[in-house]
Amino acid sequence: MAGGSGTRFWPLSRRKTPKQFLSIGTDKALIVETIERLAPLIMPDRVKVVAGISHTQTLRETYDHLPTEAYITEPCARNTAPCIGLAAVTIAHENPDAVMAVLPSDHHIGDAETYRQLVKLAVKRADEGEFVTLGIQPTRPETGYGYIECDPDENLENEGARAPVFPVRQFVEKPDKATAQTYVETGRYLWNSGMFFFKASELLAAFEQHLPEMYDRLMQVSEVMGDPDYADKLDTLFSDFQSISFDYGIMEPLSQTSSPCPIRVIPAQIGWNDVGHWAALEDFAEFDDARNVIDGDAIIVDSHNNIVHSNSGTVALVGVEDLVVVHTPDATLVMPKNRSQDVRAVVDALKVQGKDELL
Amino acid sequence: MAGGSGTRFWPLSRRKTPKQFLSIGTDKALIVETIERLAPLIMPDRVKVVAGISHTQTLRETYDHLPTEAYITEPCARNTAPCIGLAAVTIAHENPDAVMAVLPSDHHIGDAETYRQLVKLAVKRADEGEFVTLGIQPTRPETGYGYIECDPDENLENEGARAPVFPVRQFVEKPDKATAQTYVETGRYLWNSGMFFFKASELLAAFEQHLPEMYDRLMQVSEVMGDPDYADKLDTLFSDFQSISFDYGIMEPLSQTSSPCPIRVIPAQIGWNDVGHWAALEDFAEFDDARNVIDGDAIIVDSHNNIVHSNSGTVALVGVEDLVVVHTPDATLVMPKNRSQDVRAVVDALKVQGKDELL
Repeated sequence: MAGGSGTRFWPLSRRKTPKQFLSIGTDKALIVETIERLAPLIMPDRVKVVAGISHTQTLRETYDHLPTEAYITEPCARNTAPCIGLAAVTIAHENPDAVMAVLPSDHHIGDAETYRQLVKLAVKRADEGEFVTLGIQPTRPETGYGYIECDPDENLENEGARAPVFPVRQFVEKPDKATAQTYVETGRYLWNSGMFFFKASELLAAFEQHLPEMYDRLMQVSEVMGDPDYADKLDTLFSDFQSISFDYGIMEPLSQTSSPCPIRVIPAQIGWNDVGHWAALEDFAEFDDARNVIDGDAIIVDSHNNIVHSNSGTVALVGVEDLVVVHTPDATLVMPKNRSQDVRAVVDALKVQGKDELL
Repeated sequence: MAGGSGTRFWPLSRRKTPKQFLSIGTDKALIVETIERLAPLIMPDRVKVVAGISHTQTLRETYDHLPTEAYITEPCARNTAPCIGLAAVTIAHENPDAVMAVLPSDHHIGDAETYRQLVKLAVKRADEGEFVTLGIQPTRPETGYGYIECDPDENLENEGARAPVFPVRQFVEKPDKATAQTYVETGRYLWNSGMFFFKASELLAAFEQHLPEMYDRLMQVSEVMGDPDYADKLDTLFSDFQSISFDYGIMEPLSQTSSPCPIRVIPAQIGWNDVGHWAALEDFAEFDDARNVIDGDAIIVDSHNNIVHSNSGTVALVGVEDLVVVHTPDATLVMPKNRSQDVRAVVDALKVQGKDELL
């Protein structure tokens, strides 16, 4: 899923190059890392990238290792349920029983080796007909993520397996601080990573049950696949899709209405980070001796605990602390790390001022 | 005098474009403001610019209003005494009794109208054979400037004149804080602005008396003027000149050894600023409602008391205070205002790292 259009990494992220196309605390663009991280398991010709036309374009320009068929173009933005539904009918059209791994393209995973082992396990379980997700072992009572409640006393996997597999009790929305605290303390809650594994056919059955109207439209899409004017027909059909998230439209009702819940979660300690804002780099990037995180050319004088990013050119700091400083040729951002979430205010101001060239 | 090569306005100032070629808190480059400020008094064909070849080149590229004869090229850097001496013999070669106004090219003057009136008065006195300087009325016990002690009880100018003219007692070097404090309290001390007015012939007589060896060389330069290989000959002669400042080599001994001292000072309240470092902009540039000084495109969110400069591109600040932020396409500088003097450390680091393209 490469359709995200976040603004929290401005001025590095722009409309044409949102977060997934950036190297933030990483060697390569996050989406390229996402693809290449699984290269030992998934051949390039089995990779599908779902995104709007401008983002697939951006990827093709910067990463030419995928065949044309890899790109599934969303005619317009309709949130994740239609996105994953479109991918499912496309894949099912080739092979209904294919196992899909649905992966966000803009996350960082520090321990790729462990991650691949868990993916292997998830794919195995999905191939047996289950819905599987990776649940991130919480390291703090984070209020910015959804949680998955599981039953950690009921390991469904063999003793010898790489990791346990637990039944999911429920998906829960972003909690308040106190609730998050209890979640972490019980040991029954994991962060919802947004990574899902299932057979295309199983998923489409879930669509039929929980989003029947969308399912009907997806079947209409499936029927016109291969038509010479498929793109036009998809345009028309897709714009009528309900804009709804996959979690809310499929996973939550699936966990509630089916008994027992058919969803499995694999607890994952894989150095996961959703790279939510500039200050998140401190969670996984390397520090210099003065605890600065520096990506790009920099001259650091008497400065500590800063995050510096420059994709070209040099950033010079003298006597500053706890700042985020991002230099691009046409824009520079300076803010305290604890204001990282407020980059949106800058982007909003740029919109108001009509500075489209910077968006 | 356009030969300065300061580094304190990096990353805006570079070797090819030191401070005098920058618009810092001003509409035009400081040197252009210096020339145009006096345009009502001094025609372009009476302007001489003394600088090394690369800096005269920079000026010719950006300001094409001066005739070729305006440029006096210093073959190498030898401080201000040889610089002014070379200008003096060049001007004396045309007209020995011409009055020279020696002016730094990198200062800001807020009240140009008053300044021109004082220059007019200074030129009148110089035409009568005196050495005249403008002394800036101190506004604080500054330790970064030289001072001029005068005798404020002895106004040499008519009552009806625009300003008084006082005899100079002595030129004194940069004082310590306590001394500066007493200087300001006595009311007898003015800041040395580096602006001097005298007849070329009078100045050369002072060279003969106080820097006799340099005077001899200047006469040799004068003799070869107009030769087809003048530039080559000047090259050879000039490199042997003693590197010494005009204040130290001429004005100080002139004030000490001649009795009575032939130097006059006109107290000047002209909004003078030597634009010594980034934080100096606060002394004369305009503030926004949040007391930020902003030159160039900027998005300011919850940020106060900052100095922002961008010659191209946009600077965005979120929740920061008391910073200097300078954006250029290939480099960004961030520091607290009170570290403005330490830009040198960045330039030194660039030199050590061999990043010549940023110097």
